[in-house]
Amino acid sequence: MKLGCCYYPEHWPEDIWVDDARRMKDIGLSQVRIGEFAWSRIEPEPGRYDWAWLDRAIDTLDNVGLEIILGTPTATPPKWLVDSMPDMIAIDADGNPRNFGSRRHYCFSHLNYRKECERIVTALAERYGNHPAIVAWQTDNEYGCHDTIVSYSESAKLAFRKWLAEKYADVGALNIAWGNIFWSMEYRNFAEIDPPNLTVTEPNPSHVLDYRRFASDEVVSFNKLQVDILRARSPGRDMIHNYMGFFTEFNHHKVGQDLDVASWDSYPLGFLEQFWFSDEEKLRYARQGHPDIAAFHHDLYRGCCTGGRWSVMEQQPGPVNWARYNPAPLDGIVRLWTLEAMAHGAELVSYFRWRQAPFAQEQMHAGLLRPDNEEAQGAVEARQVAREIALLETANNGQKSVAIIFAYEAAWLFETQPQGQSFRYIELVFEMYSALRQLGLNVDIVSHEADLSGYKMIVAPSLPILSSAFVDKIKALAVPILFGPRTGSKTADFQIPAELPPGALQDVLPLKIKRVQSLRPGLTEKGDDHDVSRWIEDVETDLVPSETLVDERGILFGKNGVNYLAAWPSQKLLRRIFMKMASDADVGICELPRDLRLRSLGDLQFAFNHGIEALSLSDLNLASAATEFLIGEENLPSAGVAVWRRQIESQNRA
Amino acid sequence: MKLGCCYYPEHWPEDIWVDDARRMKDIGLSQVRIGEFAWSRIEPEPGRYDWAWLDRAIDTLDNVGLEIILGTPTATPPKWLVDSMPDMIAIDADGNPRNFGSRRHYCFSHLNYRKECERIVTALAERYGNHPAIVAWQTDNEYGCHDTIVSYSESAKLAFRKWLAEKYADVGALNIAWGNIFWSMEYRNFAEIDPPNLTVTEPNPSHVLDYRRFASDEVVSFNKLQVDILRARSPGRDMIHNYMGFFTEFNHHKVGQDLDVASWDSYPLGFLEQFWFSDEEKLRYARQGHPDIAAFHHDLYRGCCTGGRWSVMEQQPGPVNWARYNPAPLDGIVRLWTLEAMAHGAELVSYFRWRQAPFAQEQMHAGLLRPDNEEAQGAVEARQVAREIALLETANNGQKSVAIIFAYEAAWLFETQPQGQSFRYIELVFEMYSALRQLGLNVDIVSHEADLSGYKMIVAPSLPILSSAFVDKIKALAVPILFGPRTGSKTADFQIPAELPPGALQDVLPLKIKRVQSLRPGLTEKGDDHDVSRWIEDVETDLVPSETLVDERGILFGKNGVNYLAAWPSQKLLRRIFMKMASDADVGICELPRDLRLRSLGDLQFAFNHGIEALSLSDLNLASAATEFLIGEENLPSAGVAVWRRQIESQNRA
Amino acid sequence: MKLGCCYYPEHWPEDIWVDDARRMKDIGLSQVRIGEFAWSRIEPEPGRYDWAWLDRAIDTLDNVGLEIILGTPTATPPKWLVDSMPDMIAIDADGNPRNFGSRRHYCFSHLNYRKECERIVTALAERYGNHPAIVAWQTDNEYGCHDTIVSYSESAKLAFRKWLAEKYADVGALNIAWGNIFWSMEYRNFAEIDPPNLTVTEPNPSHVLDYRRFASDEVVSFNKLQVDILRARSPGRDMIHNYMGFFTEFNHHKVGQDLDVASWDSYPLGFLEQFWFSDEEKLRYARQGHPDIAAFHHDLYRGCCTGGRWSVMEQQPGPVNWARYNPAPLDGIVRLWTLEAMAHGAELVSYFRWRQAPFAQEQMHAGLLRPDNEEAQGAVEARQVAREIALLETANNGQKSVAIIFAYEAAWLFETQPQGQSFRYIELVFEMYSALRQLGLNVDIVSHEADLSGYKMIVAPSLPILSSAFVDKIKALAVPILFGPRTGSKTADFQIPAELPPGALQDVLPLKIKRVQSLRPGLTEKGDDHDVSRWIEDVETDLVPSETLVDERGILFGKNGVNYLAAWPSQKLLRRIFMKMASDADVGICELPRDLRLRSLGDLQFAFNHGIEALSLSDLNLASAATEFLIGEENLPSAGVAVWRRQIESQNRA
Repeated sequence: MKLGCCYYPEHWPEDIWVDDARRMKDIGLSQVRIGEFAWSRIEPEPGRYDWAWLDRAIDTLDNVGLEIILGTPTATPPKWLVDSMPDMIAIDADGNPRNFGSRRHYCFSHLNYRKECERIVTALAERYGNHPAIVAWQTDNEYGCHDTIVSYSESAKLAFRKWLAEKYADVGALNIAWGNIFWSMEYRNFAEIDPPNLTVTEPNPSHVLDYRRFASDEVVSFNKLQVDILRARSPGRDMIHNYMGFFTEFNHHKVGQDLDVASWDSYPLGFLEQFWFSDEEKLRYARQGHPDIAAFHHDLYRGCCTGGRWSVMEQQPGPVNWARYNPAPLDGIVRLWTLEAMAHGAELVSYFRWRQAPFAQEQMHAGLLRPDNEEAQGAVEARQVAREIALLETANNGQKSVAIIFAYEAAWLFETQPQGQSFRYIELVFEMYSALRQLGLNVDIVSHEADLSGYKMIVAPSLPILSSAFVDKIKALAVPILFGPRTGSKTADFQIPAELPPGALQDVLPLKIKRVQSLRPGLTEKGDDHDVSRWIEDVETDLVPSETLVDERGILFGKNGVNYLAAWPSQKLLRRIFMKMASDADVGICELPRDLRLRSLGDLQFAFNHGIEALSLSDLNLASAATEFLIGEENLPSAGVAVWRRQIESQNRA
Repeated sequence: MKLGCCYYPEHWPEDIWVDDARRMKDIGLSQVRIGEFAWSRIEPEPGRYDWAWLDRAIDTLDNVGLEIILGTPTATPPKWLVDSMPDMIAIDADGNPRNFGSRRHYCFSHLNYRKECERIVTALAERYGNHPAIVAWQTDNEYGCHDTIVSYSESAKLAFRKWLAEKYADVGALNIAWGNIFWSMEYRNFAEIDPPNLTVTEPNPSHVLDYRRFASDEVVSFNKLQVDILRARSPGRDMIHNYMGFFTEFNHHKVGQDLDVASWDSYPLGFLEQFWFSDEEKLRYARQGHPDIAAFHHDLYRGCCTGGRWSVMEQQPGPVNWARYNPAPLDGIVRLWTLEAMAHGAELVSYFRWRQAPFAQEQMHAGLLRPDNEEAQGAVEARQVAREIALLETANNGQKSVAIIFAYEAAWLFETQPQGQSFRYIELVFEMYSALRQLGLNVDIVSHEADLSGYKMIVAPSLPILSSAFVDKIKALAVPILFGPRTGSKTADFQIPAELPPGALQDVLPLKIKRVQSLRPGLTEKGDDHDVSRWIEDVETDLVPSETLVDERGILFGKNGVNYLAAWPSQKLLRRIFMKMASDADVGICELPRDLRLRSLGDLQFAFNHGIEALSLSDLNLASAATEFLIGEENLPSAGVAVWRRQIESQNRA
Repeated sequence: MKLGCCYYPEHWPEDIWVDDARRMKDIGLSQVRIGEFAWSRIEPEPGRYDWAWLDRAIDTLDNVGLEIILGTPTATPPKWLVDSMPDMIAIDADGNPRNFGSRRHYCFSHLNYRKECERIVTALAERYGNHPAIVAWQTDNEYGCHDTIVSYSESAKLAFRKWLAEKYADVGALNIAWGNIFWSMEYRNFAEIDPPNLTVTEPNPSHVLDYRRFASDEVVSFNKLQVDILRARSPGRDMIHNYMGFFTEFNHHKVGQDLDVASWDSYPLGFLEQFWFSDEEKLRYARQGHPDIAAFHHDLYRGCCTGGRWSVMEQQPGPVNWARYNPAPLDGIVRLWTLEAMAHGAELVSYFRWRQAPFAQEQMHAGLLRPDNEEAQGAVEARQVAREIALLETANNGQKSVAIIFAYEAAWLFETQPQGQSFRYIELVFEMYSALRQLGLNVDIVSHEADLSGYKMIVAPSLPILSSAFVDKIKALAVPILFGPRTGSKTADFQIPAELPPGALQDVLPLKIKRVQSLRPGLTEKGDDHDVSRWIEDVETDLVPSETLVDERGILFGKNGVNYLAAWPSQKLLRRIFMKMASDADVGICELPRDLRLRSLGDLQFAFNHGIEALSLSDLNLASAATEFLIGEENLPSAGVAVWRRQIESQNRA
């Protein structure tokens, strides 16, 4: 695994570039991402390119042997470009413009903006496509950041109508698919259809779902436009985009099909603070992030490109600027995050950013260097971990253990019609992921279209749109599989299946969901040693349940290894279900304490202590006096990492 | 009482209509509401009517003897109509359009939309006005749903100016009535006056109150336009509109003057979840609804039409889709709700809806049938209760007991200028209603313009605009009457009366409110065994108070049976006040446990257990071994209902 | 000190004016503010002035010897004026207009509205400039009330570009100052620059800060326009504006440079309810206001005009109408507030308002008189305190004790980039002020540009933009000084200083802030007997800390009396720090109980009991049997005030 950083030569006086490059090497970095926000310097006026500074920047980095990932600058079109076509900006759901003055001020559907992107990307690719230092391209930057996927502009409206006409051909088919008769919402032609915003009450959910699919497809084609240009002009380089955390607004699997490497931007502390975690978790993990946040995304994005190549393009190196509260990471945790990425198979961990900028929006975002050019804590840990990584040879033996099925459309669907406001798809997936990881398991998070052969256990936290083809596929697998609540609850058109949920799953599991209930906080259903909250389903079946509530209602039903969970589960219940499945699948598990996580890669075994108390691996029977540690030792301090060869694994997990 | 359902033949393949009709009859339903969202099928293109399908639908229902309530489809104008006059949509307070894509996308003041409504209603009336199966018409659907009463469109602005010119004739009179001199808000002519939105800070409350009166009057005239057409072309049929729960945006009493039957849409679980109830209540009654929610509206809407005719047009039969959380009703509670409506004198309980739709916005709203055409729990209970109702002969002997005075203007007034954010009119009325009901009393909720003769006790929770005529009326009644806080606190122009509150009430009760206070949660004033919270008034009077705080300040003052309560009361205080009034009025009361409610109708006595624990009527001295139950028995299980003849009532309540 | 009231003759029938004037005198008032909302009566139609009524009103007041403060009516332009130039209204950050219908419906940058203001102010000044009863002018009313300082109108945009061009001359300089390269935000000319609203994510903070400086400067010039006209035509009269509470949207120090007297509008109960105070404080002080609210503003606004002249232009006399909850003041507290203003050196306390208006927006706002013309509690207390004031001769000996440095730009800066959402500048200042006041100290709150000589202790709660000139100034003072967190953390351009925070302070205090952290509620750092919450900084220094956490990290560092506090402090920590500083400065302190406050003025010592329990001054060693009280006595009841000559002070505070 390589280390790198995100660097903005245009932010700094040229006379310090040479020293910057030298110091990067000295710390142990080998790759640098540059260029993704530099349009106003590359093309300061319409049609006048200024390559000279970028030539020099690239050469300066190249001169010390740094490899370069060059970003296309399309996330930040300059003011002159926006002023030349003011309608290129996106429009929000309230009808307000999302103007120039920060970044991502464009609508994916604006055809002339796409032409401008073609032009600038072509110019860049032609200039640098064959430069030996350029090893990869990053398209744009963080598609969707600041809620920028869905736009309600005139451009988007026209593109949506076209998208619908292509999908449905006949508006009558659309009326049926959407159930437009419901409230006299029938259209006579595609030109009558508007985006689903500013309606009196909620719009038709099928309308919304198609709009989100359309918006996602716009991202796919926008990205592909750039990739096609770059591949043609810069052969042999990797195509990369940097995804974000807990972000589901577009289909990353589809975008990933056009990339070589999926990368993501890892900010564990900011994500903990900004997402749904409890106050208790936000305090406990304030300086580490929840133990599963980074790993979850590593495993998710590893599933986004064919071949499973992935990287961390931006790694938090200190306090960030954008969460409500921004504490400093625990000393040592930047090193832990880096080794954790390695354990999950990253090709690169690139710290964001080289030096903290003293100006503009992110001036309070830490870098490896402080604004006064001294090393910040991030640099100290990067230097240490660079040495440690060098000691470890990793080879992923392609071993498959547990797969989680992840579907972007599921997120859109439950957001469109949650039916209970605490039903959050990404949280449900995360809960199941976390329960698996607390059993010491390696997890892959993959699309339902992925090859599932070889996995010993499969978990689909919820797969509301479930095709017969998928059911056939899992039938053939003959491994324990769990489907979570609301699986098979909708058709592809966002309707309830004629046979009732779980739809096509009834082929293998004879049960019907006859009624569902969402439960306000505090309203729970009692199980033996756990509570069901948020969501519960009434099941009609002759099957004998494998988990019941104290009132004997079944909440888990299985047949031939295929299981359906008819409730939002607690961690306690999940642990029991997964232990049973693992036992059935003959997968070794290891019940871990709350703050410890394991990951194996090839023959290496990694252990990570995300807590503030020390843990002893031998007390946990994870290591013994005989263990030869490549990194760390039996006693794992706060933020500590241990790595050893997996000789003991067979014993321990048998 | 009849049972019915809401049916949408246009949502289903024609080949199942016959079976649907047969099954409705089989369950015990006799009326069906149809048509209210079907404009796009009745008139698929401008001016081209398609009656054939509707003819067949009506005949299919008629053929098995079902009576039909036909809805006018004006709540869902088709897209082609909206596109033909885009300014027909309403504009919200922020100036945003409320576009096509769901329902109720029109402004009541748009003159050309009114013409379109005239046209479609005339066409329907001419087609079906004399069809023998048509027994009633429903105008539009749920006026005001999704906050659609008040619009800030150009049409509304012009209509408002006209309304003001008619009311005030001279703009100088308006300036004085509104007190426009206050901040140089004086107008020189009516054409200078805008709707009261988008002002820098709060607009003049008199301006707001007149705007709300205007908006309410627009609903009245919109409804009357349809009723006049229908009465002329469909003689002998009932004119009905379906009102909603806890909804006060327009004057239902005024609309009711043009109707024959007031109906309402009863969703006890959704209302509990969405309104002001405490978390404790939301959990305790999650699957039943608060025991007074349905009854409150039954008694309110019984007071909305001359003659007191009323129905439940939509009855929740299972989980709904529109609350934040949507649990399932307790088994048996749909039956309870149905019998409760009967006990309060309903003519019809119509379940919404026949079959759960598998598509569009309300696909998660339960029906009597599931989407797979099997009977849901609602159908099971409807079938049972249909049999039970058949056993009961009811005749309302017109007996009057307690009247609550309800004023829609009071709601608007306190929303416009709450003075303390916890002062909610509808909640205050509900609290007083609930306290009366917990004493086992039958309550009528009526307008201040209603005939009050014959009532033994009268409660006006608050009547801020109090005319001398009303004071004269109550003077003549000579029964105990309670006026709540802020009664008489405003003139009709929304000014403080010259003589101070309670204004004209001072004629019969010599006291003045010299100062009022609103209290934040936690700030209370101590009474002997109760606390005053939210609101308290300083009273200037020579009267000796009949209730005081521990510091001896009076909070209840009375003279000749007329009482004024100078504080927001607790349930404890209300119970004591009402017991005293009942004793003075010689009205028998029965202190009920929290979850039990009684209602008598003619010579029938009903008891309802809204709790999850069983209750014994004989323990409560409500029944004895000698009681012959028509329904139920002494022991009332959770969701249980008992009905018996009132022989014991005289003893018990003497 | 004089007493007065705010009076609106135009609100009342002329036949009661004479009686009103007589009663004002009778109560003990000597000044009356009039006219500030009367434009529609002064100029009922474009160009037609009606002076007659105002002549009579002024003469009526003058006839009984009342002095008049005449307001310019520019906060309430009439409808005809707005209709003549609809673009004069301000536009909010969402792009919505802020229309006519209440008040303050104008944009400070609209050039033609400025011309209209010139015209009406000139007309008023020419009419009344030399009237002997007119002793002062109030410009406009409460600049900024209802969030009206910053407007995003077209007028504002053009004026901003002009302001920028004047400040930067060259757009390249602006690009560098703002760091526009960051996200390709570079401009090619000033005409490309828009206001910083409706951007996709947060705009450049330098852009925002300049916009707020611009908006503040617009207020300064708007005010100066009026003052210049008035001074020229009404020589010898005081120029006054009435500022508000906890309001920092414009630079009051700059506006104050053009005024003779800074006045403010004191509503302690409303401010307590509406601002950041804890629930515990909101209940404890519900009827008094927090003990430091009024005093804080007295001391703040005393620092706003050269010469330190200040007044209370509007004093809450009873419940207000505009807070979420509006309880009544404790009996006696209006008197306390009045004497407290005197103790802090006010020239005038003017009650708002003479008589409660029965109409329009503020009809629930108490006056000295009730709407029925009887005296309300406020009048009773005003009458009493008028007599008491007459007994006290005050002379401010100009004695200086403790100075707090207050910077409006600091508030804007931390709002623009809080970095932790609990970092509120005004709250930090208030906390430090309160800690000082609880030590019995007299405090002046002054601009960093004020003359600081003579102060014995200086506290700068935070001074993020710190010039070398200021550092030189404090170096010369040689008194204990405390700088709070984030001092020196930014350059004037809103960048991090090259030498890191605290920037120029490093000249006198050799330390660097190498990292900052914001902490969510509950995340604290332990000190010996206190907790650090919200904010903590990592300090790089060789200095030995004078306060440390239990883990030995330093949070307070000092050298030669200059101290830097690297954390958000608790009251406990502040008390310890200030006691040490006071001891070093040889300033006598007196540790007060929570509800008691002291203030000395000349040789008078005042004590105020803001609690609901009585306090004994002798128990506190503040008074003795020998003390001769001018007002009050040893035993200070709830809301009680005592005044005596300071003979004991020297003993007590030695």
